[in-house]
Amino acid sequence: MSLAEQILQGNIRAAARLMRDIDDGAKSAMEELKVLFPRTGNAFVIGITGPPGAGKSTLVDQITAEYRRRGKRIGIVAVDPTSPFTGGAILGDRIRMNRHADDDGVFIRSLATRGHLGGISRSTGDVVNVMDAMGMDVVIIETVGVGQDEIDIVRMAHTTVVVMVPGLGDDIQAIKAGILEIGDVFVVNKADRPDTDRTVRELAVMLEMNQARQGDWRPKVLKTEAARNVGIHELVEEMESHRAHLFGSGSMKHLLEEKYSRMFIEMLKERLFTEVYGHLHIDGTFRRIMDDLAERRTDPYTAVDRVLAEKFPH
Amino acid sequence: MSLAEQILQGNIRAAARLMRDIDDGAKSAMEELKVLFPRTGNAFVIGITGPPGAGKSTLVDQITAEYRRRGKRIGIVAVDPTSPFTGGAILGDRIRMNRHADDDGVFIRSLATRGHLGGISRSTGDVVNVMDAMGMDVVIIETVGVGQDEIDIVRMAHTTVVVMVPGLGDDIQAIKAGILEIGDVFVVNKADRPDTDRTVRELAVMLEMNQARQGDWRPKVLKTEAARNVGIHELVEEMESHRAHLFGSGSMKHLLEEKYSRMFIEMLKERLFTEVYGHLHIDGTFRRIMDDLAERRTDPYTAVDRVLAEKFPH
Repeated sequence: MSLAEQILQGNIRAAARLMRDIDDGAKSAMEELKVLFPRTGNAFVIGITGPPGAGKSTLVDQITAEYRRRGKRIGIVAVDPTSPFTGGAILGDRIRMNRHADDDGVFIRSLATRGHLGGISRSTGDVVNVMDAMGMDVVIIETVGVGQDEIDIVRMAHTTVVVMVPGLGDDIQAIKAGILEIGDVFVVNKADRPDTDRTVRELAVMLEMNQARQGDWRPKVLKTEAARNVGIHELVEEMESHRAHLFGSGSMKHLLEEKYSRMFIEMLKERLFTEVYGHLHIDGTFRRIMDDLAERRTDPYTAVDRVLAEKFPH
Repeated sequence: MSLAEQILQGNIRAAARLMRDIDDGAKSAMEELKVLFPRTGNAFVIGITGPPGAGKSTLVDQITAEYRRRGKRIGIVAVDPTSPFTGGAILGDRIRMNRHADDDGVFIRSLATRGHLGGISRSTGDVVNVMDAMGMDVVIIETVGVGQDEIDIVRMAHTTVVVMVPGLGDDIQAIKAGILEIGDVFVVNKADRPDTDRTVRELAVMLEMNQARQGDWRPKVLKTEAARNVGIHELVEEMESHRAHLFGSGSMKHLLEEKYSRMFIEMLKERLFTEVYGHLHIDGTFRRIMDDLAERRTDPYTAVDRVLAEKFPH
């Protein structure tokens, strides 16, 4: 029986195995994903992003507990594009979420590897699809930081929660700039800190002024203290409101189209490069180009021109 | 006269124009870059990265002042992959570095655009090449955050400075994980804060334990208070030591090879995709695939298979 068939029958170990294959970029994984794809589309996918230190892990832990009380099964994908070097995310996997460790209704997976081909947002999408096909009601994607990678990653979600903390310092403007557009719900966590209300006000004003946002959903700014489970119920209600809005307004269709288009493009980019790059290696062209560059007999721009001209003669 | 020729004659406006073209992804830019390439390789390229709020801009400002005192010409590329949405970096350009604004020996450029093709680390490399060809003695690449994008970007540098602040909170481990390997010099800025010595010790221990690092350079952890110009002289001396080490140990050759290889690969990836994606749009294939995906007549994995099979029949 294929991994995909085992997964559809509820085999957790098969799911873990396939996710490892996805992370490794194994070719077989794609065949399994093809089988699972028609069984996806039921999970509510939540993205949680925000700067390091905002308490996202604790928040995810509390959201998970809240959904468990509502009888939902939860998948969690913790994505850390910065940690391929030291296997940080794998360590994280072991030490975090202890209280859900023995709960069959919670499935946790860390993704750290980002190969030379990029594509971590794509493998995140693949892992979300596996969890979706497994029958998880809610899949939470949590990112470690809030760079462009993370923005690409949370775009896989239906509802994106941006987590901030009071008074992040000088660069708060810079952080906010890129994420105003992607947040459907904003959370100021660690709301027992002194600057909370000012940060909430600042965010609210920036959201008010922000013209780039599309659609008629107006994001709210909520306060939470994840460590003390304060404000979590309200946060889950707000996420569910956004989900209802997506379905009610017809935005869901548009959102799915964007998601598929992004997946297709990411994969196409990756596969095209693998194909051509592989050939350049096999026939020795790559080594020759590198030598020419080292000796400055050519420049990188001209070298690429030549490869393209050879692959796509017009 | 071509832009490249004007730039080689010291025309600053031509350089600014070419950098805009690079940012816009103009095809003509590549022809100019080909001309400039043989005139590159003289500048000392410094990468400055670290989490938001670490005071990187102030630090860059002080490093610039220090190099100016030494009679060097400085190019600065401030890279913000998160800000395409709101043009944050352009605003940043205007308000920062005021004291160097009238100094002919300082050339500042912000890069924010990251198109659908990715490639901001590549355009950073292009802009560094322009500054190098312009005759800048030192080029500083400063990133806003510290995600994978930023790591790719600072890999363009000869010497990478990682800036931290005392007591960044829970996620400091996660931040450190990815950047231990890329830092040649570590700086704990805002060293007047209470937790400074603990953070310095923690970093030193992590660097000590870190096995992944290659070569025989041992990064130091320095303390600075950029706002009061404390520790800047020592920092510049340490960067210059690293530079001397690169030349002395023969690492420079290896580093350049890696840099060229990365530039070639990035460009190849981008151009391959543009080529194929462009054709899929022109002949209507892309629209058909998107419709099939929306109606779930196919899945993204199979759709990519088909395109590849058509482009590269074996």
